[in-house]
Amino acid sequence: MIEKVEHMAMLFDFYGNLLTEKQQDILSLYYEQDLSLGEIAESYGVSRQAIHDILKRSEKILQGYEGKLGLVKKFNLEREKLAGILDILDNVSDETRLKQQIRKTINEIAEIQNE
Amino acid sequence: MIEKVEHMAMLFDFYGNLLTEKQQDILSLYYEQDLSLGEIAESYGVSRQAIHDILKRSEKILQGYEGKLGLVKKFNLEREKLAGILDILDNVSDETRLKQQIRKTINEIAEIQNE
Repeated sequence: MIEKVEHMAMLFDFYGNLLTEKQQDILSLYYEQDLSLGEIAESYGVSRQAIHDILKRSEKILQGYEGKLGLVKKFNLEREKLAGILDILDNVSDETRLKQQIRKTINEIAEIQNE
Repeated sequence: MIEKVEHMAMLFDFYGNLLTEKQQDILSLYYEQDLSLGEIAESYGVSRQAIHDILKRSEKILQGYEGKLGLVKKFNLEREKLAGILDILDNVSDETRLKQQIRKTINEIAEIQNE
């Protein structure tokens, strides 16, 4: 569940600007400011169900963009590779091996980007 | 002019899947397969002007996505930073400085991604 929320927050971070202003406001309250459906509903003077519907619709739109562009997936793969470089820096001291492994990782990042 | 074409090809690469199939086909012929307007027009049995209009409209759409999401700009900044790491690997041999500079660059990449 937390993973789902995190994933949705990332989709919103990447593609949120493609939503309407109202959709963006509501997703921001829910995913960034961590308000409950009830709290958001109250501040808009609408039903909890109405907010729920807007969230679901917006999530579908964001998932649609990710399905077509896949940029969050690429970003996550890249972030893992960068963490891998930090790991190499922490654990490899032989200069030749260090440089070799970092170059390899950078090539792998370039491949992710070019996919 | 070449820069403009390269930039447009990148926008197409990032956001092309958000265009209609016909728009994608025509941009692919123009930007990826390097056909001329005249050649594309002939293969579609339409005027050169018609293809020109589709290209212009599609370019506007792609620029609109970049204006809202800015992912190509981030990608280019990131690519420069990664090239910077390769440069450090080529030119720095002192282990402490090498590791320090690479860590610094990776932090800068994380900042670009979090902007």
